[in-house]
Amino acid sequence: MLGSGFIARFYAESLHAQRRKDHIITVYSRSIENAKRFADDYNLPHHTDKMKEAINHSEVDVVLISLPNHLHEIAVEECVKAKKHVICTKPLGRTAKEAKRMLNMVEEAGIFGGYLEDLCYTPKFLKSMESVKKGDIGRVLWAKSREAHPGPHSDWFWDKEKSGGGAIIDLGCHCVEISRNYIGKNVKPIEVMCWADTQVHPIEAEDHAIGLVKYANGAIGQFEVSWAFRGGMDLRDEVMGTEGTIWINNFLRTGFEMFTTGKGGDGYVAEKAEVNKGWLFPVGDEAHDLGYPNMFTDMFAAIEEKRDPLETFYDGYIVNAILDAAYKSAETKLWEPVILEDWRGDAPDASEIEKTSYDNEHYLIKEEMLPNGDKKIILKHKTTGEVTQKTIS
Amino acid sequence: MLGSGFIARFYAESLHAQRRKDHIITVYSRSIENAKRFADDYNLPHHTDKMKEAINHSEVDVVLISLPNHLHEIAVEECVKAKKHVICTKPLGRTAKEAKRMLNMVEEAGIFGGYLEDLCYTPKFLKSMESVKKGDIGRVLWAKSREAHPGPHSDWFWDKEKSGGGAIIDLGCHCVEISRNYIGKNVKPIEVMCWADTQVHPIEAEDHAIGLVKYANGAIGQFEVSWAFRGGMDLRDEVMGTEGTIWINNFLRTGFEMFTTGKGGDGYVAEKAEVNKGWLFPVGDEAHDLGYPNMFTDMFAAIEEKRDPLETFYDGYIVNAILDAAYKSAETKLWEPVILEDWRGDAPDASEIEKTSYDNEHYLIKEEMLPNGDKKIILKHKTTGEVTQKTIS
Amino acid sequence: MLGSGFIARFYAESLHAQRRKDHIITVYSRSIENAKRFADDYNLPHHTDKMKEAINHSEVDVVLISLPNHLHEIAVEECVKAKKHVICTKPLGRTAKEAKRMLNMVEEAGIFGGYLEDLCYTPKFLKSMESVKKGDIGRVLWAKSREAHPGPHSDWFWDKEKSGGGAIIDLGCHCVEISRNYIGKNVKPIEVMCWADTQVHPIEAEDHAIGLVKYANGAIGQFEVSWAFRGGMDLRDEVMGTEGTIWINNFLRTGFEMFTTGKGGDGYVAEKAEVNKGWLFPVGDEAHDLGYPNMFTDMFAAIEEKRDPLETFYDGYIVNAILDAAYKSAETKLWEPVILEDWRGDAPDASEIEKTSYDNEHYLIKEEMLPNGDKKIILKHKTTGEVTQKTIS
Amino acid sequence: MLGSGFIARFYAESLHAQRRKDHIITVYSRSIENAKRFADDYNLPHHTDKMKEAINHSEVDVVLISLPNHLHEIAVEECVKAKKHVICTKPLGRTAKEAKRMLNMVEEAGIFGGYLEDLCYTPKFLKSMESVKKGDIGRVLWAKSREAHPGPHSDWFWDKEKSGGGAIIDLGCHCVEISRNYIGKNVKPIEVMCWADTQVHPIEAEDHAIGLVKYANGAIGQFEVSWAFRGGMDLRDEVMGTEGTIWINNFLRTGFEMFTTGKGGDGYVAEKAEVNKGWLFPVGDEAHDLGYPNMFTDMFAAIEEKRDPLETFYDGYIVNAILDAAYKSAETKLWEPVILEDWRGDAPDASEIEKTSYDNEHYLIKEEMLPNGDKKIILKHKTTGEVTQKTIS
Repeated sequence: MLGSGFIARFYAESLHAQRRKDHIITVYSRSIENAKRFADDYNLPHHTDKMKEAINHSEVDVVLISLPNHLHEIAVEECVKAKKHVICTKPLGRTAKEAKRMLNMVEEAGIFGGYLEDLCYTPKFLKSMESVKKGDIGRVLWAKSREAHPGPHSDWFWDKEKSGGGAIIDLGCHCVEISRNYIGKNVKPIEVMCWADTQVHPIEAEDHAIGLVKYANGAIGQFEVSWAFRGGMDLRDEVMGTEGTIWINNFLRTGFEMFTTGKGGDGYVAEKAEVNKGWLFPVGDEAHDLGYPNMFTDMFAAIEEKRDPLETFYDGYIVNAILDAAYKSAETKLWEPVILEDWRGDAPDASEIEKTSYDNEHYLIKEEMLPNGDKKIILKHKTTGEVTQKTIS
Repeated sequence: MLGSGFIARFYAESLHAQRRKDHIITVYSRSIENAKRFADDYNLPHHTDKMKEAINHSEVDVVLISLPNHLHEIAVEECVKAKKHVICTKPLGRTAKEAKRMLNMVEEAGIFGGYLEDLCYTPKFLKSMESVKKGDIGRVLWAKSREAHPGPHSDWFWDKEKSGGGAIIDLGCHCVEISRNYIGKNVKPIEVMCWADTQVHPIEAEDHAIGLVKYANGAIGQFEVSWAFRGGMDLRDEVMGTEGTIWINNFLRTGFEMFTTGKGGDGYVAEKAEVNKGWLFPVGDEAHDLGYPNMFTDMFAAIEEKRDPLETFYDGYIVNAILDAAYKSAETKLWEPVILEDWRGDAPDASEIEKTSYDNEHYLIKEEMLPNGDKKIILKHKTTGEVTQKTIS
Repeated sequence: MLGSGFIARFYAESLHAQRRKDHIITVYSRSIENAKRFADDYNLPHHTDKMKEAINHSEVDVVLISLPNHLHEIAVEECVKAKKHVICTKPLGRTAKEAKRMLNMVEEAGIFGGYLEDLCYTPKFLKSMESVKKGDIGRVLWAKSREAHPGPHSDWFWDKEKSGGGAIIDLGCHCVEISRNYIGKNVKPIEVMCWADTQVHPIEAEDHAIGLVKYANGAIGQFEVSWAFRGGMDLRDEVMGTEGTIWINNFLRTGFEMFTTGKGGDGYVAEKAEVNKGWLFPVGDEAHDLGYPNMFTDMFAAIEEKRDPLETFYDGYIVNAILDAAYKSAETKLWEPVILEDWRGDAPDASEIEKTSYDNEHYLIKEEMLPNGDKKIILKHKTTGEVTQKTIS
Repeated sequence: MLGSGFIARFYAESLHAQRRKDHIITVYSRSIENAKRFADDYNLPHHTDKMKEAINHSEVDVVLISLPNHLHEIAVEECVKAKKHVICTKPLGRTAKEAKRMLNMVEEAGIFGGYLEDLCYTPKFLKSMESVKKGDIGRVLWAKSREAHPGPHSDWFWDKEKSGGGAIIDLGCHCVEISRNYIGKNVKPIEVMCWADTQVHPIEAEDHAIGLVKYANGAIGQFEVSWAFRGGMDLRDEVMGTEGTIWINNFLRTGFEMFTTGKGGDGYVAEKAEVNKGWLFPVGDEAHDLGYPNMFTDMFAAIEEKRDPLETFYDGYIVNAILDAAYKSAETKLWEPVILEDWRGDAPDASEIEKTSYDNEHYLIKEEMLPNGDKKIILKHKTTGEVTQKTIS
């Protein structure tokens, strides 16, 4: 385990829960005090403030990087030297270039490179992906992911140099990969339009952004990210398909509601909750609902089975490329192309919309039941293009 | 009442409900059969297929236009000639030019011009506006309105010439005015970025669009509109402010849930509901929840009290100007300026973000309670700009 | 208007809203100051502290009783003497005896006696009743109504002598009539089991109670009432039928959610809301969502059309009889019969359960889809009674 | 693993998921075909149709009983003989007598007896229990648990002899233990009132029941169970405390909503879901949300740490004793005492209600903000008992 901060703790708790057979051997932190505190809290046999020492520890098979963004590449380099498998927290890099270098290193070294995109492992996400693959919602037209909260926990997030940006790099990486999964990983992302602004905080980086990602088949991915949201952590996905709709709420409304006058005293309610009295919306098992256990299960199983995990370094690279385009668009105010020197999916090739025939001469536009019991049918003539309607009572 | 279609019926039912003192005198329809059927259904003393005859009927004080979009201007012209007050369904025009001509005509004639933007009169909207005005959510940063359903009821909607467009003109007019109210009607809309596509239906106009409207104070209005949504009518608003959040669901989730095996037989469930078995989400009182009664109350009271209603022809014109920019942006793929030859609000002038001081030397970026009970404070030095953190346990 | 308290104000606002043609002429209050304040607030031409004077005012056609429970009978007596129509707030009496005397007086005098049971007029209730009548949920098996909040507004409620009891008489009257509507007003209520306790407040009357009402056809009505609920006003109904389910939430979760840090200052959020910061759940239009406008529309229309309203003094009497049995049961701890000297519905006669045949020899108990795709069918032999199962893969 | 049915499969999936170190060695089923199918599905090295053989298998440390209710005691007997630890699915026995015999056997043999009450291990339940213990909702007044669905999967459930009853024994066992946890396991259950009926199915046992359990401290546990619910599996808990409220929805509304036209084809949606088109409410990770992983983690950790698990055979016995009283009450129509020959909790001793003083002379009954901004305070005189009110504007 490289890193001993907030996310490292979440990871450690997931790894050591539910009688899993995988265990943390050592922890590296830049501060030896933090390394010790972490090792004590999770009963680790070893800790260190030397990254190499941790990576090269003889019992370590897999290195888990949960360091600030600007240290990912250095850590991957060390893993490559030590020929240890590596799984890295999100975002992979601060830019596509950085991510590509990490991808190349790992692939050349023949080691495993897992991308810890937990929100693509939440129970709701995985189940909804099954439905999408089965065709329950038809062709996906639009996939939006929203992640908004009152801002991150650690100083380095707020420092553009270390993090690579603001809410877009921190939260947008989740949203982009969620949308991309729904739309299909083989479908090429073409261009991005993004608005970003620093609306509230005294920082250089953006604290609010909205982006649209156009895919080769005409589908739209949308991300809404903010560090200026009030009320807790808003993690919602919405997908529109030709045959259905998916709405997922991962955090603030999950069927657990509590009112308290606050007489029980202060305490932790949930990640980024802002209040601890009145109506609260705790999450039953945060780590599980955020996807950590499923993610680690997939990663370790993939290593054993010598297969790719669901989320790879390559996916991390694609996400960075999309975010690069988003940052550029936020500056140029133009739709910016997603630059992918290494595209492994389908060739871009827009799919045709199939029109539904009503009869030989007409396409069916729609039919609907009216309040008075009539049924209305709206048609378009196949040759003249004229739109007409019929009422069937 | 000019028009006898779906929306005219909704209007008539609201007007004749709850023992109101205002009544419909006559109805005009282009088809005399429809006029008669409408007059019979609502016990009207008179009906006609001549627009002038209806407008000039001696007992008519106010003319309600619920005609297809391309007939609004002609109808307003006739009202102006007859010096009768006029209230007109949404959108006011197909373009800002058309809307501006209607506005000018009405103002020059000194008659009342009310804009029937019902979704700015829903009970939830009105109550949330009170909260926003009171400052409950602080400065508004973002106001999104979403209206999506499987497509409109009548043929003319699907005909770009008659309607002026597709989902943007039909649904976006609601969304734009809702966002504009939350952000403040005095704040100038500056520019628009819009994506639009025809993803599903065999039509020329767009059946799906997403737009961002930038306001002079940095706030963002967002609209999401679609005729390709599956599952009913999705009417939701979300507002983010510096001190709070508002989430409104006007239709699909309002605290009324019903499961039925369908043994009760077919029937009307709710506007644009797509199924009548399984889990259904009816709306208690559709007309009320869509704002009709409050809207007519305001309109007639405003006429009597010789004041402006909440929504005027001028508002309709602003909405059209924003939608014009949206249509242009969808074509040029650029942020397009909102062209307003007649702006009556505040001069554009971006407001400054107030930074919160932590102490003499630092701004406060954020504070948060962590799961282990620690409190973290993130600070920015006022002169060096360095970001640091403190943990208070 | 007799009375000038909380409920009288709610009534007055509903009556004077939405351009209704019915208006309040005068208000009576035991305190002339309150009468004056009320008359001023609602622009009434007249006010008085003499009940007779108000009732006999020449312009008054209908008397609306919104007085404490112990004054209902006296007020009805005066209306009867004056031969004025009367509509009376809930509960009708403090006991069935009192209610029966009021019913008799009104019927003998030939005047109109409307029972102001607003929660049987909420938009959601009325719409769900249509579904129930249409057969959408089949035969009703169980109808629960829950009303719980942190306690009433006025001193007299808490005084057992004046109110006739505690939470049961105050809130149970709503719940009992809601369940009775769903089950069918013609179905005789047979017996009641009730638990009641004073769990929290320093009062004689119960502040929490749960009751079961058994109807002649085997259906169960359930009421859950409390003055000790924390979190606002909890108004929910649940109905189970052989073909479906209804869930109604009238207040705390209606699709309107707001988070506020409280910087907007204090203020009224919703009836019995307990907090004004954090997550709040305001109601769009409280009066409408609580049924007042629909109730008054029905009452005045019924008077004009010389028909019964949906809720009559007779209904009020039945409710009181059920509550009498509830109070008795809470003391005796036995199922207590509902004593109805005047029953106008169907003769008690339990309906037979229809069994669904699977084939000539078996009844179908149930069928279900299993996770592995198998379909299971559970059968009962018609003569031997043996239960068996089949799996169809 | 004894048993190879629906619940055994759910258990097996939880046990073999997430890289747990505990594995199933063998499976016993009365039918060798089922045993083989099960062993194949879960890659078990051994299977048998001889119970003893399975229990005595040398690698087996813990026996998991997931057999029909009438076989629990026999299986426990065999485990005792083999001195193997035993964990048994719910309900422990068909009656308290049966449960007590099992409890005695296990305690005398000094083996571990874990009670597999999964719903007391759901993530939401565990987290809410923390809040309750911390005092967030004050003193618990009422704890209701509801479990209702369209009926169980296997024939033996519907056979009163084998199962010990109907919906009460099948579902009530969950509800009773949930309520008991919230109220406090040390608080003695005193008496039970229960209504039960066979409203829909052609069976002897009850398919719908409602019960009230009175505890020594005045708190009320409530269970609502049914095999006649339509719409899926309704698993909800509600708790009222003097300082707060808890609402938990474990299944039908958990923040995952999907609409589908059904074009994706048929398939399994969720346990006891009744439809697979229209609006569906899948559960992200059923096993986890139903508590299985947490339950097994606690059981195996408890065995290793030689401590009691959260749910023991003793708890199973108490639940059976409460259900015995419920069955008796359903017949006698009286409040029936809970007969506990072996009570290990606190002596019954009703706690006093603390009254809140307003000033020296008055108790505070309540205070509330009114719509017009006034604040009302309701008081009771400490000696005279008179109830008065004050309005502070």
